Amino acid sequence: MQSIELSQTAAQKTKDQAKLKVAPAYDSILELAPYQTGKPVEELTREYGISDVVKLASNENPIGCSPQVTLAITEQLGQLARYPDGKGYYLKQALSDFNNIDIECITLGNGANDLLDILARSFVGSEDAIVYSQYAFVVYSMLAKMQGATGIEVPAQRFGHDLIAMRQAVDDNPNTKIVFIANPNNPTGTQLEREELHKFVASLPSSVLVVLDEAYVEYSPESNNRALLDEFDNVVIVRTFSKAYGLAGLRIGYALSSAPIADLLNRIRQPFNVSRIGLAAANAALADQDFIEKVRDTNQEQRRWLEKQFDALGLGFIKSHANFIMVEIEVEMEDTTAAVIHQALLEQGVIVRPLAGYGLSNWLRITVGVAEDNMRLIDTLRSILTDD
Amino acid sequence: MQSIELSQTAAQKTKDQAKLKVAPAYDSILELAPYQTGKPVEELTREYGISDVVKLASNENPIGCSPQVTLAITEQLGQLARYPDGKGYYLKQALSDFNNIDIECITLGNGANDLLDILARSFVGSEDAIVYSQYAFVVYSMLAKMQGATGIEVPAQRFGHDLIAMRQAVDDNPNTKIVFIANPNNPTGTQLEREELHKFVASLPSSVLVVLDEAYVEYSPESNNRALLDEFDNVVIVRTFSKAYGLAGLRIGYALSSAPIADLLNRIRQPFNVSRIGLAAANAALADQDFIEKVRDTNQEQRRWLEKQFDALGLGFIKSHANFIMVEIEVEMEDTTAAVIHQALLEQGVIVRPLAGYGLSNWLRITVGVAEDNMRLIDTLRSILTDD
Repeated sequence: MQSIELSQTAAQKTKDQAKLKVAPAYDSILELAPYQTGKPVEELTREYGISDVVKLASNENPIGCSPQVTLAITEQLGQLARYPDGKGYYLKQALSDFNNIDIECITLGNGANDLLDILARSFVGSEDAIVYSQYAFVVYSMLAKMQGATGIEVPAQRFGHDLIAMRQAVDDNPNTKIVFIANPNNPTGTQLEREELHKFVASLPSSVLVVLDEAYVEYSPESNNRALLDEFDNVVIVRTFSKAYGLAGLRIGYALSSAPIADLLNRIRQPFNVSRIGLAAANAALADQDFIEKVRDTNQEQRRWLEKQFDALGLGFIKSHANFIMVEIEVEMEDTTAAVIHQALLEQGVIVRPLAGYGLSNWLRITVGVAEDNMRLIDTLRSILTDD
Repeated sequence: MQSIELSQTAAQKTKDQAKLKVAPAYDSILELAPYQTGKPVEELTREYGISDVVKLASNENPIGCSPQVTLAITEQLGQLARYPDGKGYYLKQALSDFNNIDIECITLGNGANDLLDILARSFVGSEDAIVYSQYAFVVYSMLAKMQGATGIEVPAQRFGHDLIAMRQAVDDNPNTKIVFIANPNNPTGTQLEREELHKFVASLPSSVLVVLDEAYVEYSPESNNRALLDEFDNVVIVRTFSKAYGLAGLRIGYALSSAPIADLLNRIRQPFNVSRIGLAAANAALADQDFIEKVRDTNQEQRRWLEKQFDALGLGFIKSHANFIMVEIEVEMEDTTAAVIHQALLEQGVIVRPLAGYGLSNWLRITVGVAEDNMRLIDTLRSILTDD
């Protein structure tokens, strides 16, 4: 009956987390470690006093965003005191045209994360299960915990989704409400064959929602599975303006689905979940597809360059379809793990992402930067691997 | 067991909402009407072809925001592709100084709405109850529905919170987890006596969380109850940059609480819930307290002017402590209701807020504008009331 039991003494305050009784899922929420974000440049500067920092840790676009975005934002500067259009009319109109889908099938989110969260809240109760792959985006398992639901992690196959095993997992867990599929996958960079995915979706009962996370779709047009929506009402595609569009700082994502699902998601989302500046910026960014093409080309070229360097350094890596590469730190010196290399890079102003949280403690995820960043990374990495 | 049952025919798609089986609270979510936002200026322009629109519907700051904000945003324009600092270090540091509270006691939100939502998710399950006042901010009852919980609406007293009856409601519902209190209250503008509120909180079991919504606190410094946090661990204060700070378009709110509660809220919130531009803008806005003083003075002066005009027009209103006035449309002509007046104002380019959704169908909530807006409103209102 008692939901909060807090001591009245200040000294105990910070120790008393365990006494908080929360709902609906007390234990799972308290065991939830906060999401580990990439270290912000400002933080490294603050902690180590390094000003010349290269961040290749959060799969951000090193080219930035379309120059059209600055103009669009500037036009909004006199309107900051006004609430955003809660319906996101103009952006949804543009997304409707761009994706050839009815405007009623679109839901906007405060980043793709907001949409993943809304989907879990809408469909998953504490008696339900969520199925996802090992080595897939960590947020899926966090959402299961958040809903007090069962998270079913299906072992990966060659670091990618094992759709046959995932299909079996749905049969084994008839209370499965959502299957999350990241394509291309983060952090491994793997991509699913379109036919294989189609077969998977077609085989599922229509009571199971397939959430396709296409955060990196612009880097790999073959991973665009928009066509599935024409055939299946239980598919939702989630996308973001945080990656290729270069608007991670502004928080805009969107979901494509059947109209009834979109209607539901729009009831659950917060009325003003996307900011006025986010709406305007995304609209301008979407209109500039030449920029996206340039981003894709640069990424491909630089990704190839990095692959060659990793080869030369004798480091293994997973073939990536996105804007990052997962690299194996297999060094001959004893007790030199990926964590040590990560820390050594950090101290020299290069931020990459360790993957111990994914059970990949020998691996680092490295975002593909622009030429200058990548050279800095490789030079620093080489000096660490050689001198240490 | 089946969570989604969607027809495969496009024609049926939009009618099939009722077939969606959602969790955890199927019925309550589908009966949830989307939050009625104030009509955006762009929408009125689109629908009626009116370009010269005055919006007094969303309690936005008609003066805008501090000029320092534009500078702060401009500095971020080269960094849009970078994720925001998920910890909000600099803004929280500034809020810590401003509110004389530990940085560990602060949670940032994508507007105050985000924080209210996170609080409900954290503490309220489907077996629980939320207590709030009649005529208080509509989001409280929506959150109860969203959690599948029981919403207990306590009848208002003279349009304000009846704390004695609310105290009784907590006794009557031992499963009460949160009491929401808006002070000043939206949409009525009423304010609670500090002593009365203190007595109320002191009388509650510490297992009940009191969420004080101080969205309008800058307009009425007497409604600042920050001091309660030093005495009670079960109090959370929620504030926003959307009102007096003039940043509604950017979505920034914050909660002050005990450190353990803040720790919990920070686990539940999305890792990047506040945008990079939101963080920078809020920091700049907070630093400019001269602007806030000007806003408060202008609001007070204009609110008084409006009161006089309503008196002259023979319209009743509730004494307000915020940046809006609730006005009674008591007209002698038959079938002339507040809704009719609202529509007539709309057609002449003046947007105000009808309150039928609150069971206040004879009332309109009118945001205090700058002198020019207010004159336009009064002139238009006078001509409607006289000619119709």
